[in-house]
Amino acid sequence: MTLSQSTLDELVAAGVSVRTDPDVIETYSHDRSPAPYGLALAVVSPADTAQVSETMKWATRHRVPVVVRGAGSGIAGAATASDGCIILSTAHLNRILDIDAPNMLATTQPAVITAELDRAVAQRGLMYAPDPGSVEICSIGGNVATNAGGLRCVKYGVTRDSIAGLEVVLADGRIIRTGRRTVKNVSGYDLTGLFVGSEGTLGVVTEIDVRLRPRPVGLSPVIVGSFTDTAAAGAAVAQVMSANLEPELMELLDRRTLTLIDDFKHTGLEPDAGALLVAQTTGTSAIERAAVIAELFTTAGGFDVIVSDDAAEAEQLIEIRRLAYPAYEHAGAALVEDVAVPRSRLADMLAAVDEISARHGVTVASVAHAGDGNVHPTFIYERGLPEVPDEVMAAAEEVFRTAISFGGTLTGEHGVGVLKKRWLGEDLGADTLAVCHDIKGALDPLGILNPGKAI
Amino acid sequence: MTLSQSTLDELVAAGVSVRTDPDVIETYSHDRSPAPYGLALAVVSPADTAQVSETMKWATRHRVPVVVRGAGSGIAGAATASDGCIILSTAHLNRILDIDAPNMLATTQPAVITAELDRAVAQRGLMYAPDPGSVEICSIGGNVATNAGGLRCVKYGVTRDSIAGLEVVLADGRIIRTGRRTVKNVSGYDLTGLFVGSEGTLGVVTEIDVRLRPRPVGLSPVIVGSFTDTAAAGAAVAQVMSANLEPELMELLDRRTLTLIDDFKHTGLEPDAGALLVAQTTGTSAIERAAVIAELFTTAGGFDVIVSDDAAEAEQLIEIRRLAYPAYEHAGAALVEDVAVPRSRLADMLAAVDEISARHGVTVASVAHAGDGNVHPTFIYERGLPEVPDEVMAAAEEVFRTAISFGGTLTGEHGVGVLKKRWLGEDLGADTLAVCHDIKGALDPLGILNPGKAI
Repeated sequence: MTLSQSTLDELVAAGVSVRTDPDVIETYSHDRSPAPYGLALAVVSPADTAQVSETMKWATRHRVPVVVRGAGSGIAGAATASDGCIILSTAHLNRILDIDAPNMLATTQPAVITAELDRAVAQRGLMYAPDPGSVEICSIGGNVATNAGGLRCVKYGVTRDSIAGLEVVLADGRIIRTGRRTVKNVSGYDLTGLFVGSEGTLGVVTEIDVRLRPRPVGLSPVIVGSFTDTAAAGAAVAQVMSANLEPELMELLDRRTLTLIDDFKHTGLEPDAGALLVAQTTGTSAIERAAVIAELFTTAGGFDVIVSDDAAEAEQLIEIRRLAYPAYEHAGAALVEDVAVPRSRLADMLAAVDEISARHGVTVASVAHAGDGNVHPTFIYERGLPEVPDEVMAAAEEVFRTAISFGGTLTGEHGVGVLKKRWLGEDLGADTLAVCHDIKGALDPLGILNPGKAI
Repeated sequence: MTLSQSTLDELVAAGVSVRTDPDVIETYSHDRSPAPYGLALAVVSPADTAQVSETMKWATRHRVPVVVRGAGSGIAGAATASDGCIILSTAHLNRILDIDAPNMLATTQPAVITAELDRAVAQRGLMYAPDPGSVEICSIGGNVATNAGGLRCVKYGVTRDSIAGLEVVLADGRIIRTGRRTVKNVSGYDLTGLFVGSEGTLGVVTEIDVRLRPRPVGLSPVIVGSFTDTAAAGAAVAQVMSANLEPELMELLDRRTLTLIDDFKHTGLEPDAGALLVAQTTGTSAIERAAVIAELFTTAGGFDVIVSDDAAEAEQLIEIRRLAYPAYEHAGAALVEDVAVPRSRLADMLAAVDEISARHGVTVASVAHAGDGNVHPTFIYERGLPEVPDEVMAAAEEVFRTAISFGGTLTGEHGVGVLKKRWLGEDLGADTLAVCHDIKGALDPLGILNPGKAI
């Protein structure tokens, strides 16, 4: 596709920032995934919703593909440039517009960093619950695009569960509002839920009404337990999740992850442990619930079970979990995967990952949002290769198929992007995928929004 | 539309139950609303998903409108017959297919009564949370169609929040699965959320995977407080909802409701009370949280505040709330409305209802799922009239417009059906409504699924 400078000048004339410097384009053309990307025509950075609308009207007029890009922290290749596209950067849409404490809502533009949103509402005693691992560098708009998860999801649900409504610019430039500032609302179809997780293929999200929660007060004890293997740890997770104890965190680290963290930081983590569980409780009766969790850990065969309600020490225990990815990246190049299985199959999934890893001779270490059955098998391989090695992709493909065969999915919280599209038909079924394409066709008949991604 | 007997015989030949007896058709042609209805051709009762698929293929072939009907307990006219349609009764799809306790999921056919589903899973220590007022007579399929609410929503969310996935027969007879038996899943668009609340206009739901929760154990104290007016009660609700106390019930009865209940049952409810709040806590630390709620009630000006953790007495206190609708129906014909507003506008909404009631000279009594800002103003008028009196409709219309002007909606949990369609454009905005129609067109290009309803 070629586009004359005079065509781009129409956008400039509308007051929209347009940059065509190759260095700028290169910077905005990829996310944090190893996905290949194409050559974009320009980086367009609207200043407000009206300019986003102008941009989409222009794109419709000239049939130019539009790739929306937030913080670029995605790891599935959902926001990578395609040939001949413009990259619509949300960077200037970076303000929190309103915090409505009585209704526990906030309205924000998409480029606000998720952790900053949470800190802003914390000053009012409130919390924005979803906390993807990238919370300090990802934007709330990207979280909406991918329906991002995180550690606290085990108690509060995923991003979709915290979105009350959206302002969306459609492919043709019309601006709509979805959802409502009410707790309940059944007028019209659930467009809010549809746009959340659609990875920029159905519209450009320009405002987000997020649901907030009272921020837990009081002690937030952390419970850590070691287990001889992942099967025992999985059984402990099942016990806790069936017992109405509402942990706010229920994470699992496998043996290889513990070893890599120890290699990285010499933490002295129990070398005999086949798995470590890290849980936390918050709010009313947190101490009592933590004690019950510790008891359930022990009953399920856990050893070295620790409960700490000292804030600093609790933070240190959670820090072990946070060291997983730095430890992976210390060890080599890392391809982070994201399968989810029914909670009862968690241990089976982890065992399958180990078996696949051994058979293909590739290094795989796993952490899991165990309470949600969401496993991140991370493939670690030689740094500096031009692409992911074939044996890694072959092993990853087996991991995906195993998750699907367990009644699971190939992505629990990272999204499909371009990296997982080829398995999507197996994951969804052909007719379900066809319905997604029908909806895409209805909302974006020219196919200009993030073509080739997500579905 | 005319349809020859030979055409219907094709369905009979496929083994599907087809009834054309006028009495049967009449019985299945309406719901519990005063909505007008048309003349259906037949009542078709498939025995399984395959027969639903055969029915939809047949309907597509002959372009026959299909109105899906569950228990007929709807009150918005979403399942009423249109001229020339067939009524697709789900009555034979009435089995719970699976209870998967480890993953806290159940799979059910749509005609299962909601309360029966909850009782079945209770035997496994689990709970199906959403509990519409009609829980003993409504079907889970109808709950999915309308995204039904209920009393426990204040803690657990609406029906959509408890649906993991669906089996849906599309307009052309294709059978798809949406969602997943996992906690997290971001592959493909959120079709599950889209079908929930679509009132039979996008597909026929034939199986439902519901999310269950651990059933609360231990004492479940009830807190009751009287207030001089709804403003004071509204302030108390706001305090409780901001304080992380997680009530499982937070209901408000207005003065007229209390009077009507007293007329009906001579309960001796405080005649000076302008509003009564009924709350309940369940689970860990329920007693402690109930005490805090009682304190907040008192601080906010509540009087005669009672906390009861005696199961029988607690049940009696909740029974007061359950008497509201019988009391309304004792007093006359009742049109139950269903506005929802941001929680902070609850008292404003109740005041506006009183003012509108007085100005139009119509009797309106309100109960509210107060913690959710969901108000049911019920218009009580002379029994036996052929239709709802003009002054009642005029007052109801003002109530809707007031709710919308407060940032609310004209339906929080009952649905749009036919009764509220004429205000939907005002509620959603024209472009948002147009997107709903685009999606309808993509999934049901011939427009045979519940034509004229919901959007």
